[in-house]
Amino acid sequence: MTTFELVLVGFGHVAQRFVTLLEEQRAALARERIAVRVVGVATRRHGAASAVRGLDAAALINRVARGERIGRSREERPAADFIADVAAANDAARERRLIVVETTTLDITRGQPAIEHVRAGLASGAHVITANKGPVAFAYHALAAAASRADRRFLFEGAVMDGVPIFNLVRETLPAVTILGFRGVVNSTTNFILTAMEQGQPFAEALSEMQAMGIAESDASLDVDGWDAAAKTAALANVLLDARLTPRDVERVGISAELGRPAMEARAAGRRLKLVARAAREDGRITARVAPEELPDDDLLAGLEGQQNAIILHTDLLGEVAVVQRGAGLTQTAYALLSDLITIGRDVNGPRGLRGRPPARRARSRARPDRTL
Amino acid sequence: MTTFELVLVGFGHVAQRFVTLLEEQRAALARERIAVRVVGVATRRHGAASAVRGLDAAALINRVARGERIGRSREERPAADFIADVAAANDAARERRLIVVETTTLDITRGQPAIEHVRAGLASGAHVITANKGPVAFAYHALAAAASRADRRFLFEGAVMDGVPIFNLVRETLPAVTILGFRGVVNSTTNFILTAMEQGQPFAEALSEMQAMGIAESDASLDVDGWDAAAKTAALANVLLDARLTPRDVERVGISAELGRPAMEARAAGRRLKLVARAAREDGRITARVAPEELPDDDLLAGLEGQQNAIILHTDLLGEVAVVQRGAGLTQTAYALLSDLITIGRDVNGPRGLRGRPPARRARSRARPDRTL
Repeated sequence: MTTFELVLVGFGHVAQRFVTLLEEQRAALARERIAVRVVGVATRRHGAASAVRGLDAAALINRVARGERIGRSREERPAADFIADVAAANDAARERRLIVVETTTLDITRGQPAIEHVRAGLASGAHVITANKGPVAFAYHALAAAASRADRRFLFEGAVMDGVPIFNLVRETLPAVTILGFRGVVNSTTNFILTAMEQGQPFAEALSEMQAMGIAESDASLDVDGWDAAAKTAALANVLLDARLTPRDVERVGISAELGRPAMEARAAGRRLKLVARAAREDGRITARVAPEELPDDDLLAGLEGQQNAIILHTDLLGEVAVVQRGAGLTQTAYALLSDLITIGRDVNGPRGLRGRPPARRARSRARPDRTL
Repeated sequence: MTTFELVLVGFGHVAQRFVTLLEEQRAALARERIAVRVVGVATRRHGAASAVRGLDAAALINRVARGERIGRSREERPAADFIADVAAANDAARERRLIVVETTTLDITRGQPAIEHVRAGLASGAHVITANKGPVAFAYHALAAAASRADRRFLFEGAVMDGVPIFNLVRETLPAVTILGFRGVVNSTTNFILTAMEQGQPFAEALSEMQAMGIAESDASLDVDGWDAAAKTAALANVLLDARLTPRDVERVGISAELGRPAMEARAAGRRLKLVARAAREDGRITARVAPEELPDDDLLAGLEGQQNAIILHTDLLGEVAVVQRGAGLTQTAYALLSDLITIGRDVNGPRGLRGRPPARRARSRARPDRTL
């Protein structure tokens, strides 16, 4: 059993659900030989708290809910300094047991402050897991290199499809496969609005509905102008296609009230209007685009209703493989963090199934002529 | 770099494509620190050959293509004995570097002889990978227990969706998630026939087309009577739902020429007729069924054309997650074996990304009061 010490940077709905999910999944974590202790919490407006022996995270959730500060100090310090201080205060970082859990509110035009938090975590000897798309959309290769140098993990399964695995899928289950490109529907708000407009509901009304449900951002432009989808497209392209893109490099056309009539007409003709994200390697360079596309009815993406998302991977060995997310919500996003935590646990604890055994002896090099493929 | 020694039991199209794929993917395997050498080949009608220093598998493919025997011996010996002999002849089994690759022709009503080959491999200290659904459909728990006792791996990614990951997906990327049930379209032949019948093509003509393409079995009843789908359903239920089913326990209704009219009528009404495989835990017991179902047009399974397959997992934490296979063929099936080989390689070589490092020290048990979730 390894006890991981967690520093929660950002303590909003996602981080709070992550904390309660950790408690609910304690038995599942124990089966993975993982225990956890929250040793630091940094909030945007309610201060920060840390304790080497562990914080009572449930009590902190209650304090924040009552509008109370969680730390004694009045001064606000940068979260990056807080991370460094917590890492310095105990042995967990050196022992590969410290994990920064990054869930701050994102400036999607810059990827900050999440990128700085990831850097600070890795520089302090912590693994970093994040539900933010910013770091991987704006700075994937730099952060992956920093993680490699630090010999720590930087994981972000929740950045694109919440808890539905897409990065893990490619890394863990498609070895030796080359991803040639992808297309998908990756923004729930715009898909919901387009589906509603097909049935004659006005754009503004559908958008308000999504905001009331807490799914659309209060700044609706991030969704409807395609910024969220462009950030996810850049993230996917950077990791899966080894691209060097930022969201600004993604050709981007959003949706608007003017698509109401085309959406209805497409539906009447047995076709569907979808905001499609796509990227591919063409003539040695990566092209990436987010734009409304009219799809034939038998296209997998055409069938995605309401908040459903999907990504179709175009591969060399397997042809097309698709992953479809049919439910979304806070638990799914928090689960993405949990799955990243377990990925780190499996790394640190070693492979399951073959526990406690030494690795195979290396095959001896032989002088006799071998037939080795 | 670990050199794995392979014993190919069954040397038909799948095994031969696996051999050429190993050669094509030599660089990808090297990145995984895996090299391979074929040390044994057992065929059904062309004898068997083995050599501790390695066989020239490409030359054996040519011999079989010319109708020649590959072994000197005239006597036919059971493959299980052949496996034991090859394992005894060198150090690979003891060093966890021997892998039996099982691709024999399956008796789908019994799961044999594949089950005996898996047992023999594990008993000889080999890992076993198979593209056959028989072992996991008829004897999953017994074979998994044998693998655990032997401290070797028994993997079968190709049993249900060819190379598209479903077992790996759940094992590697959905930790802590409980699968509550699934439904899917898992048989290409019946899906192709139903799609053709919607457009007025006669049942027998569509079936002949699939047989001519080498996709349908020459004994068509395995496909059209639902046996293949029932075996895959039992396999999925045994592994994902911890069921104890054989294909005989799966309620089974196949397809026939009489479904031509209903298929056309459903299509005209905006609905689709599909052979749906499903299983779920209900009131503490597992129910499993394969039967034609009329699906609404917006059902993910309704949109599967021709040979496409899909499985929708119903989960506790993530809601519904679907995986769609949009291309199928020999390379996909051979890739499933390759991915199983790499899974074993990752186990034996230890985690990537954190190579050569000792595992974290165990967290000390402390007398002081800790807050550990």
